[in-house]
Amino acid sequence: MQLYHRDAIERAVTIDHDALAAMEAGFAALGRGEVVQPPILSMVIEEANGEVDVKTAHIRGAARFAIKVSPGFFDNPKLGLPSLNGLMMVFSAQTGLVDAVLFDEGYLTLVRTALAGAIAAKHLSRENSRRVAVLGAGEQAERQIEALRLVRDIDSIDVWSRRRQGAEAYAERMRGRGLAVTVHDSVHAACAMADIIVTTTPSREPLLHARDLPEGVHVTAMGADSPAKCELDASVMTRADAFVCDTRTQSEANGELKAFGGKEVPFKVHELGRVIAERQRLRLTDATITVCDLTGTGVQDTAIADFALDRLA
Amino acid sequence: MQLYHRDAIERAVTIDHDALAAMEAGFAALGRGEVVQPPILSMVIEEANGEVDVKTAHIRGAARFAIKVSPGFFDNPKLGLPSLNGLMMVFSAQTGLVDAVLFDEGYLTLVRTALAGAIAAKHLSRENSRRVAVLGAGEQAERQIEALRLVRDIDSIDVWSRRRQGAEAYAERMRGRGLAVTVHDSVHAACAMADIIVTTTPSREPLLHARDLPEGVHVTAMGADSPAKCELDASVMTRADAFVCDTRTQSEANGELKAFGGKEVPFKVHELGRVIAERQRLRLTDATITVCDLTGTGVQDTAIADFALDRLA
Repeated sequence: MQLYHRDAIERAVTIDHDALAAMEAGFAALGRGEVVQPPILSMVIEEANGEVDVKTAHIRGAARFAIKVSPGFFDNPKLGLPSLNGLMMVFSAQTGLVDAVLFDEGYLTLVRTALAGAIAAKHLSRENSRRVAVLGAGEQAERQIEALRLVRDIDSIDVWSRRRQGAEAYAERMRGRGLAVTVHDSVHAACAMADIIVTTTPSREPLLHARDLPEGVHVTAMGADSPAKCELDASVMTRADAFVCDTRTQSEANGELKAFGGKEVPFKVHELGRVIAERQRLRLTDATITVCDLTGTGVQDTAIADFALDRLA
Repeated sequence: MQLYHRDAIERAVTIDHDALAAMEAGFAALGRGEVVQPPILSMVIEEANGEVDVKTAHIRGAARFAIKVSPGFFDNPKLGLPSLNGLMMVFSAQTGLVDAVLFDEGYLTLVRTALAGAIAAKHLSRENSRRVAVLGAGEQAERQIEALRLVRDIDSIDVWSRRRQGAEAYAERMRGRGLAVTVHDSVHAACAMADIIVTTTPSREPLLHARDLPEGVHVTAMGADSPAKCELDASVMTRADAFVCDTRTQSEANGELKAFGGKEVPFKVHELGRVIAERQRLRLTDATITVCDLTGTGVQDTAIADFALDRLA
């Protein structure tokens, strides 16, 4: 059994084309019905403003599967500690024995989440997309752009964040990577020129409305991953020409489909894995509006852990 | 962060009165409603005849909580490997950071399961119980007796197992511990003189029927822990004067209450934690028949992991 810590994992696994291909293969397997993916185990630790999620999935025929534990303790910053954390255990799918423990402190989650955003954009956004509006200015806001650059020639960013200061700091960091960045005071202004909009906030109320969507835009909503969180107003989804999510059950429980309160949804719900596996073309013209809601799936964790072990071994 | 392996854990944690008290405190907290215990995460890996369960629970106010991963891969013996395995991760309940990983290979599960059986017998069996009928002859059949001896003066065992050879080997081992052991060819014969009956098999059909129950007996059913497994015929439960389980939802999904197929159960269902917390006296006379169905709960895992870390630190 091998133990790996964050520094070694960061050196081995970066946001690159190989990792993207591994993640895309995981989604495609899910789309072909080749993945066993149980519901997320979730436990709230109220007195510490904390929660812990456990995700897993097995890709049929694969040599190993991962179980990921993600604690989120939102008072940690007061103690000088990061809110998000976690580790992945990798098991032999033949014997159930532990192959490895990846003490990645949530790093692989950052990577696989960013890669999923890029995969959504690859299959849904206009090929000539160059300008990205980002709502939120945290670490995932950076990783999303890094991953998007693998699939589109991004050159400009428009950023909005609830805290202007956070957006300014983000802009500074992204300019350091050769991008033109503009900070905005409203979501509407940030999105006005966007080819792609990425929402990556912990918001508990809708931030983005149909009136904010330029023609032909693609939206990836990353932030909502629990019953309390949402970023999209229902009008964004009804306005879209195509709505895609990672899994319908998770989008209904933890993601943007909560906006419809369990009622029948007035549009077709696509799943990203099937879009990939069946080469569905949901973008018909340059004016098509597409939306992808990503809540984070166990198959991504299994795929990135497997990829990490191949690189680390 | 600390890592511990099975040998060190076995030296530190044994089936003793302190461990019993820790386990009983965990059940009592559950009974008082002080435990957050989400549903079990369970994933089947069909092509390897395997499954993996993840259990967790948090006792409100406790400094740490555990998450246990239990793989069961039932073709492993063909490869010379044990079927059951696993590890426990222990997290700070204040920050969500990993305190320790216990690579116990399922040892702590053996211990906490045996202790639960002893706790059931302590609260439900006759105080003068001396003779135990054991159905099944595996490792848990040994541990159950070891734990029972903490709470009752056990001197005789009647064992039945599907494989006579297994029962003979078990008898040999238990005689080495100073017990009088008789091997039986039928469940009925094994149970005829029992003060306590313990069922600890992977059976998928009822083994024990009402006609097998002597007056005043206590039955602990340990084996059934998944939708496919059961050991008790419905008649055992309807015949009993008191029916107790670890948690009703788990007994209905994975335990003996499945015998009623989701229909209303024609008796009161007690939970062990409340029996302890509220000092319920369910045994009214020496003729009372009691049954306890144990499926295994996350709070047991959190309690034994916490106890183990106290001993190991």
